[in-house]
Amino acid sequence: MFSCNSGGADAKDNLSAVLCGINDLRLEQRPVPKPRDHRKYLSPNKPSQCTPTLEVLLQMESVGICGSDVHFLVHGKIGPFVVTDPMIIGHEASGTVVEIGKKVKTLKPGDRVAIEPGVGCRMCSYCKEGRYHLCPDMAFCATPPIDGNLSRFFAHDEDFCFKLPDHLTYDEGALMEPLAVAVHSLKQANFRLGQVLLVMGAGPIGLVTMLAGKAIGASAVLVTDTEDFRLKKAKDFGADCVYQMCEDKPEDEIVQEIKEELGCEPHATIDCAGAVQAIRISLKVTRTGGVVVLTGMGQLEMNIPLTSAIFREVDIKGVFRYNNDYPMAIDMVASGRANVKPLVTHHFKIEDTVKAFETAKTREGNPIKIMIHPNPNWQHCL
Amino acid sequence: MFSCNSGGADAKDNLSAVLCGINDLRLEQRPVPKPRDHRKYLSPNKPSQCTPTLEVLLQMESVGICGSDVHFLVHGKIGPFVVTDPMIIGHEASGTVVEIGKKVKTLKPGDRVAIEPGVGCRMCSYCKEGRYHLCPDMAFCATPPIDGNLSRFFAHDEDFCFKLPDHLTYDEGALMEPLAVAVHSLKQANFRLGQVLLVMGAGPIGLVTMLAGKAIGASAVLVTDTEDFRLKKAKDFGADCVYQMCEDKPEDEIVQEIKEELGCEPHATIDCAGAVQAIRISLKVTRTGGVVVLTGMGQLEMNIPLTSAIFREVDIKGVFRYNNDYPMAIDMVASGRANVKPLVTHHFKIEDTVKAFETAKTREGNPIKIMIHPNPNWQHCL
Amino acid sequence: MFSCNSGGADAKDNLSAVLCGINDLRLEQRPVPKPRDHRKYLSPNKPSQCTPTLEVLLQMESVGICGSDVHFLVHGKIGPFVVTDPMIIGHEASGTVVEIGKKVKTLKPGDRVAIEPGVGCRMCSYCKEGRYHLCPDMAFCATPPIDGNLSRFFAHDEDFCFKLPDHLTYDEGALMEPLAVAVHSLKQANFRLGQVLLVMGAGPIGLVTMLAGKAIGASAVLVTDTEDFRLKKAKDFGADCVYQMCEDKPEDEIVQEIKEELGCEPHATIDCAGAVQAIRISLKVTRTGGVVVLTGMGQLEMNIPLTSAIFREVDIKGVFRYNNDYPMAIDMVASGRANVKPLVTHHFKIEDTVKAFETAKTREGNPIKIMIHPNPNWQHCL
Amino acid sequence: MFSCNSGGADAKDNLSAVLCGINDLRLEQRPVPKPRDHRKYLSPNKPSQCTPTLEVLLQMESVGICGSDVHFLVHGKIGPFVVTDPMIIGHEASGTVVEIGKKVKTLKPGDRVAIEPGVGCRMCSYCKEGRYHLCPDMAFCATPPIDGNLSRFFAHDEDFCFKLPDHLTYDEGALMEPLAVAVHSLKQANFRLGQVLLVMGAGPIGLVTMLAGKAIGASAVLVTDTEDFRLKKAKDFGADCVYQMCEDKPEDEIVQEIKEELGCEPHATIDCAGAVQAIRISLKVTRTGGVVVLTGMGQLEMNIPLTSAIFREVDIKGVFRYNNDYPMAIDMVASGRANVKPLVTHHFKIEDTVKAFETAKTREGNPIKIMIHPNPNWQHCL
Repeated sequence: MFSCNSGGADAKDNLSAVLCGINDLRLEQRPVPKPRDHRKYLSPNKPSQCTPTLEVLLQMESVGICGSDVHFLVHGKIGPFVVTDPMIIGHEASGTVVEIGKKVKTLKPGDRVAIEPGVGCRMCSYCKEGRYHLCPDMAFCATPPIDGNLSRFFAHDEDFCFKLPDHLTYDEGALMEPLAVAVHSLKQANFRLGQVLLVMGAGPIGLVTMLAGKAIGASAVLVTDTEDFRLKKAKDFGADCVYQMCEDKPEDEIVQEIKEELGCEPHATIDCAGAVQAIRISLKVTRTGGVVVLTGMGQLEMNIPLTSAIFREVDIKGVFRYNNDYPMAIDMVASGRANVKPLVTHHFKIEDTVKAFETAKTREGNPIKIMIHPNPNWQHCL
Repeated sequence: MFSCNSGGADAKDNLSAVLCGINDLRLEQRPVPKPRDHRKYLSPNKPSQCTPTLEVLLQMESVGICGSDVHFLVHGKIGPFVVTDPMIIGHEASGTVVEIGKKVKTLKPGDRVAIEPGVGCRMCSYCKEGRYHLCPDMAFCATPPIDGNLSRFFAHDEDFCFKLPDHLTYDEGALMEPLAVAVHSLKQANFRLGQVLLVMGAGPIGLVTMLAGKAIGASAVLVTDTEDFRLKKAKDFGADCVYQMCEDKPEDEIVQEIKEELGCEPHATIDCAGAVQAIRISLKVTRTGGVVVLTGMGQLEMNIPLTSAIFREVDIKGVFRYNNDYPMAIDMVASGRANVKPLVTHHFKIEDTVKAFETAKTREGNPIKIMIHPNPNWQHCL
Repeated sequence: MFSCNSGGADAKDNLSAVLCGINDLRLEQRPVPKPRDHRKYLSPNKPSQCTPTLEVLLQMESVGICGSDVHFLVHGKIGPFVVTDPMIIGHEASGTVVEIGKKVKTLKPGDRVAIEPGVGCRMCSYCKEGRYHLCPDMAFCATPPIDGNLSRFFAHDEDFCFKLPDHLTYDEGALMEPLAVAVHSLKQANFRLGQVLLVMGAGPIGLVTMLAGKAIGASAVLVTDTEDFRLKKAKDFGADCVYQMCEDKPEDEIVQEIKEELGCEPHATIDCAGAVQAIRISLKVTRTGGVVVLTGMGQLEMNIPLTSAIFREVDIKGVFRYNNDYPMAIDMVASGRANVKPLVTHHFKIEDTVKAFETAKTREGNPIKIMIHPNPNWQHCL
Repeated sequence: MFSCNSGGADAKDNLSAVLCGINDLRLEQRPVPKPRDHRKYLSPNKPSQCTPTLEVLLQMESVGICGSDVHFLVHGKIGPFVVTDPMIIGHEASGTVVEIGKKVKTLKPGDRVAIEPGVGCRMCSYCKEGRYHLCPDMAFCATPPIDGNLSRFFAHDEDFCFKLPDHLTYDEGALMEPLAVAVHSLKQANFRLGQVLLVMGAGPIGLVTMLAGKAIGASAVLVTDTEDFRLKKAKDFGADCVYQMCEDKPEDEIVQEIKEELGCEPHATIDCAGAVQAIRISLKVTRTGGVVVLTGMGQLEMNIPLTSAIFREVDIKGVFRYNNDYPMAIDMVASGRANVKPLVTHHFKIEDTVKAFETAKTREGNPIKIMIHPNPNWQHCL
């Protein structure tokens, strides 16, 4: 497990993975934070946030690498978010409570938790109406200028740390983050038992979306991708059927073949690819009155057959992270309805973070999900 | 008003406006239909169940010209719908019941009704789930090959004829059809009292959408258009503010100016223009977590900044006609919350249908809504 | 299976179980009905529209006995529904298509179907808005004066016959009726994966509600009952925990014990008992902001602690049959998410209908669900 | 208006109306609070709340007397809420910002605001899901042990102070509290334009519910009460029709007469009376598939005809205060859709608080809403 005396108040070692510039990722020591029970100041170039900070100090155990982390490393920005100052990376994480703020009531040292990385201001209309993920003052791990949690220790708000059932691993805890994206996507689609689901793209998000769709009770899920080995993975993970996308094939032929493969038109299509071709097909293949959810981030401008969806009242919905979705994600895995474990293909210690990101970039060994382990006592159990 | 003896069983004259080909609109005599009733008896000791073949015969009073009618006349088709055989035109209509099927219970001769022009199959999952407007077997007036109702007489299903309050005119009855589109659009947006509405386009649909938005309780409605006289109309009809679109102006400047004009970002944007520029701006200007409803039919392929909406969870919804929306539309007008009367700028007798469509095509005299009156006894009351 | 030549046009034998009075159930011959089709033609150049008079003739295979059937037999009425004339009993049924109306498109002879027993008028606002189960003109099998389907042959509307997957039995087909009640109840509760469910009452409806709750993804289901052997059944069927109700125990103690047994307050409570005590406890035990669904029919007047629910915004919702719920019910069973087979504890041939109802009344041998088989070729496969 | 120098940092006078025991209401000096920008401790016998306290200091202008205030004065408790220590009374209030915390961004001295009196913990699942009114740690003005705001000065969270448009008065600002209850009730009923509304009870809540129903677009509102002069008020305020309840009349006769008066069954019934008779009638008179909302707090146990509602799928919903409803309430009044001003029948200076409550108790002069004005500079403008 973990050793408390290695953490908490006396801990000196807080090795952290800091993004210092494009393709410049360094391991640096940072002060071990103290859990606050007052307002925190997020950063010089971010005005004070009024978050109710009942914080806990966490010893970090598993931190997954997300596509966005790699994108920040390689391009230094994603859309409006630009890395200007050194920023600790990491946001798909789990850890152990080692110290708690005076007022913390729901957690105690030793608790194993999945970490929801984004905390809203709790005061704007979005936060008060239950859509805190849309809060304009959201503080989200590893979204500039907010530090992430790929560190030995990290302090976070009590109510954004979700206790893990004993039979769940830290890796599963870290995987709650991408799974929460899948849960949110399916909620956007109002997806229900017995419906037919189409998932475009068999990357990590596509795979967890398929798993979540099955857990909710999809009568059939078809997963598409361009790469053969990914479709094989999708099959291994439980996809009812798969379809290999092909750039040269006429679009309407692909639409027709997907319908035939499924035996019907999908009630919902979740695009996890972000590619124009995938989105175009999503709009055409989804059944009249159905929903297309765009989870994958694509290029800013696209030429799409909007009318073919609009004319049939196929709703088009976006997904921005998640919102009160961790509990359902945890339950899916805890109940055995979704088995996410096999997603983790590679493990690294925090000291090898650069190598881990290198693997993520080169995709050598076809990684699905790479886990980094900040706890010095971590041992790979085979 | 009308004279019953001029209609019904003995009537011979059923002059009808028949679309015989591109730009070939003719006035022809058609047999006066008989209202049908095929009530089934399930068993001797089971009372008759009413099946939806309970028709009423209507003497037509007001039939508006819709953009789609003109489009059919000029191009012979709209999207998938192609006019192959001669088809009676007209679907924005009101009339008087002159004869009823034996089993009709809710209507009687003399009743003045607004006519909802589309009837679903009543058996498919869409019909049974209350979304009959998406029924693949929908029979919709003047959508090929189904005849419209620009005739002296027309037989229609009892439950798609909505009784008009005495103080409503036949013209208002005919205007329930475009108003129902507006009501459906605002339902798609889940638009509520106190919200801010943006309407793109000040054509007839844009104007009724603005009126419906005000009736529901919009705290502010801004209407855009390219043409000055239309914006003036929008103002006259009660728009809180208007904005003149301009092709040359940078898009983001327009977005900024609309926000400034409104004093905030709209909760919902209803595009009634169908133009790419209007849709692009709709996606950018609508507030985070809001809705864009695309009511206007645009070109099949468009280059749009989809991500700017998706990334902020701005839903994009389509509108295909309407669905159980006539009652609310009638109530809006009957209660005085929406004044649609001034929309009617021109009147013609059915004998002058060709001239009426000529006016619609040339737009001479800036028509908003042109009404055609099949009842020979109609007189223009000034 | 079945033999078509024993049915259809030439069939003479249509033995039917007719309720002739209180405790007076007789087997009588009735004419074999003909499937009807009154398709209307709207106009010469308008293709035929399908109106909902497209019937199929069914050879009945399995008909379950419902509590309401027994109630009609013993009391001659249920609430407003009074049996005045002889009425064929039976409404939980499955059968085989042996003949179809000329216009029937979706079914063919040989198809095995589950029968949804209620057909609305298809014209009122309830039917058109997708809530046909609330139609005031609903024709529901074995609800006076409408005949039921405990006969050798029965004619029914095409779209209320749901094709059974090959691997489902006729008994499972008949069980779709109570399962549809459970599905509808859980939809009323907007029940979702990961939530905690409390089911009051372990009768057939309580058991299928528990099964449906598990299928949808309940993280835990507790089932209550007064009788020990029923709680044992609930356990065998997969209830996570059970609780034995006891009249003498103080109410609040029971409430407390149920919460402790569950480890929390339920998100939703479905009362399938109809007893005042059960309803009182439902209102008190359900979590703030949750839902109580009253599926069981209780006495007309009850003394209940309404405020304890209202004050915490616990919604109270009723259930009247079902509404577009058969597809989800069938999918639950077809996908293996709900195993309803063991519910059937007794089998009888239609000739032994009186004995079957005797067993239902005396409850000798603790029957859960009793199946009656009208097909003379039926053999009990052990 | 107000004078800043009489308030803020240097102010000494903070006369407050303190409930010291049953029928023991005293005027006492309390320290003028300082607006906090850190966590506040609510009271000794309430564990620390973790609210993000960006507070503003308000000079109180109008504070209405609510039935609950009188109930606390006379009985010392309401349901679970018992007054044990001296507590400042008052929660229907408006005021002027005289000082702001360092971090406050949205308000400035001089802003006139309506005060939403309840602030949740912002961390529990209810708060995070947008249902903060159900927060178990809610701090609500004048609900023990939380002090109310019938004082010269009061400090409150920035985001629970809603800026009043210039043309709204302080009295209207204070009336936003009961109006928010009405808005919440109608949201619970999902009440929409064109529907028919029944309001049971013509007290202040009944009257604002009727006004809000009209503002949303009720096609008709019927208000009931036992007292004649109240029904007259309801008529004056715009009720389409009224009905005088009578204890002796048979219930079903009343149900029938209400339907006849309305010309139909109501889509929604809001009970603002809390009387058993009113609730019984609500359950019977509401249309099949409609909603009964219980806003009035009645006795804990009632004998009601639950089945008559449940059997027709009439939902029964409770109301506990409000939740994100102030903006819609303010818009209703600001837009002129609801005129609440005439509700205020009596005015008192804070020094006369005891007399004001005496009037509320005796109901001498048939008060509807009594306003108390803490600002020494207040003058009654006639």
